[in-house]
Amino acid sequence: MNATLDGDVVRAHGDARQRFYDARGYGRADGADVTLARVEAAHLLYRGDLESVSGMDFRAFFRDSVASEPGFAARFLVYTDLRERGFYLAPAREGWPGSDGAGDDRDDTEDGADILVFERGEKPGGPVAHRVRVVGEREELAATALAGVTLAVVDEESEVSYFGCSAGGGFDGQTAYDLPTGLDADLLDDRVVCWSPPAALYESAFYGQPVSGRDDADVDALQLSLLEAADLAERGAVDLDAAAVVERGREVEGDRFDRRLTVYRELRDAGVVPKTGYKFGADFRTYDAVESVAELPHSERLVRVVTPEHRFHPRDLALDVRLAGGVRKSMVFALAGAESVAYLTVERLTP
Amino acid sequence: MNATLDGDVVRAHGDARQRFYDARGYGRADGADVTLARVEAAHLLYRGDLESVSGMDFRAFFRDSVASEPGFAARFLVYTDLRERGFYLAPAREGWPGSDGAGDDRDDTEDGADILVFERGEKPGGPVAHRVRVVGEREELAATALAGVTLAVVDEESEVSYFGCSAGGGFDGQTAYDLPTGLDADLLDDRVVCWSPPAALYESAFYGQPVSGRDDADVDALQLSLLEAADLAERGAVDLDAAAVVERGREVEGDRFDRRLTVYRELRDAGVVPKTGYKFGADFRTYDAVESVAELPHSERLVRVVTPEHRFHPRDLALDVRLAGGVRKSMVFALAGAESVAYLTVERLTP
Repeated sequence: MNATLDGDVVRAHGDARQRFYDARGYGRADGADVTLARVEAAHLLYRGDLESVSGMDFRAFFRDSVASEPGFAARFLVYTDLRERGFYLAPAREGWPGSDGAGDDRDDTEDGADILVFERGEKPGGPVAHRVRVVGEREELAATALAGVTLAVVDEESEVSYFGCSAGGGFDGQTAYDLPTGLDADLLDDRVVCWSPPAALYESAFYGQPVSGRDDADVDALQLSLLEAADLAERGAVDLDAAAVVERGREVEGDRFDRRLTVYRELRDAGVVPKTGYKFGADFRTYDAVESVAELPHSERLVRVVTPEHRFHPRDLALDVRLAGGVRKSMVFALAGAESVAYLTVERLTP
Repeated sequence: MNATLDGDVVRAHGDARQRFYDARGYGRADGADVTLARVEAAHLLYRGDLESVSGMDFRAFFRDSVASEPGFAARFLVYTDLRERGFYLAPAREGWPGSDGAGDDRDDTEDGADILVFERGEKPGGPVAHRVRVVGEREELAATALAGVTLAVVDEESEVSYFGCSAGGGFDGQTAYDLPTGLDADLLDDRVVCWSPPAALYESAFYGQPVSGRDDADVDALQLSLLEAADLAERGAVDLDAAAVVERGREVEGDRFDRRLTVYRELRDAGVVPKTGYKFGADFRTYDAVESVAELPHSERLVRVVTPEHRFHPRDLALDVRLAGGVRKSMVFALAGAESVAYLTVERLTP
């Protein structure tokens, strides 16, 4: 069967509507005919279901489409991959199934989705399982635009990986403790030493790190990070000027210290315990419920603090999410503004 | 016992030489007495083996030392950690054991080592197991200064992690194949499609990725990354202008493309197969010996390409090395200059 290119769509007549639209969910119905997006027509050519589009075979049509639609090659790869996984799907495009307000009131043509994937077993226009945004591995992604989107990242060798992005961090803080007041402490370099603290400050509240885990030490002291010390100073637990600790923090890490402190404080307020995520390349690892350090649970999340203006490089995103998955934690990004923090959870998906 | 601060060293008399130097390997012998570096004296105070240094207890001496020696707090933490692991160690400092040319001819006081760790069971001045460079997690590290060094990174919560850095990538290329000539290919966007290639180009040489792994496709084509295409064009295997492919590569990723191509070409020349490391956040994953894609071995290494001027942020280094370890691969950094490539392998250590 042959079809015809008409502006930015492809039109097919005869039994095309029955074969492609009714039976297999390609395109949109146009009376007795079917209208296809370029990516759909390319897929039908690729499978041999169409022979030509305005005289072009797959190779010629693909080349013409790459020249006509930015990002076409990546979109075709993702469309093909999702079709091969057995889903019905449609371009997120006005007039195509799922994009006309039927079934939900999101305007996907405006929020950055490229392809709508319908729930398994559902026909086009049914409930949407994934709003897929297609990106090349070299494109940067605005952090604020990702909640609710499934990213399909096409790497330089044309393999596709999927990331589900959802708003919120999923924290469920249940850690409770009482803090002491006015503990003796020294601000030394880029850390703080707290002298002769009550054992519960470490054992229950999980602040700091004993100077030694060994019993042969003659010294009873807890080392605090600048974040922990700033937080404890603000809460009156250590006898240090909170502003001086924050100032030291800014000296050693700039504005980043303020953003991290905002997130640290907010998590502590919510009953979550943040500890350094350095070994995982993150800002924090977090514990929802610490009863005691002696019986420390597995930390549930890794948190990376970024600005609200942050743009992800897909390769960095892949690295963070892969590492988190490898240690059975969720990867959470904290978009920390001056006034508030928005959390974004990103996980690998296999649609 | 009390000791005396004298400039930037601490002097102890009486039976100090026997107790500290002869029996436990602290300091350097000074006639009948012993001379200690600040870090050694602090450790002895910390353990209660010294009562005071010029009237200062541990807290006062520690504070004084932090004010006198940049990076003292981190160095003390690492010194303590290594002592607790049961090693003999010495500051890398002229006149201290191991730093005076006895046993080897490296001048550790000049190559950035802070502490020498002697092989397990060896006394100070014996064979060196680790030349330890102590860094805070916020300090950047010049890539060229790391070969042969063991990094001890002190994180913001005062935990120490160790990384062994060695020159070379450890590649052992054994992949052999013949390339075709003049294959038909299109440069499309940021990738290349090679039409009707011989099966061996993918199956044996492991270039590219079939457009579909499925048998229902009507199209016989191999997708190539721009790197693969540039390499194959330079070798005459595909009928594309290599310069045009490189130009496209520079358009989409700038100078980075040239660096990556230099490494790609050098690895292929050495019989190693580099494929994208995107899913691991790296430039390449590499295979030493590919017989066929159908029986693909585990890839042995992840490679990140950097400039020779690159400075590592310890947190990024921790992330890369941890991820590589989690997938049982070595982490290799390729310092790619205009003329040549130097490789650096970094692994986590537990001394």
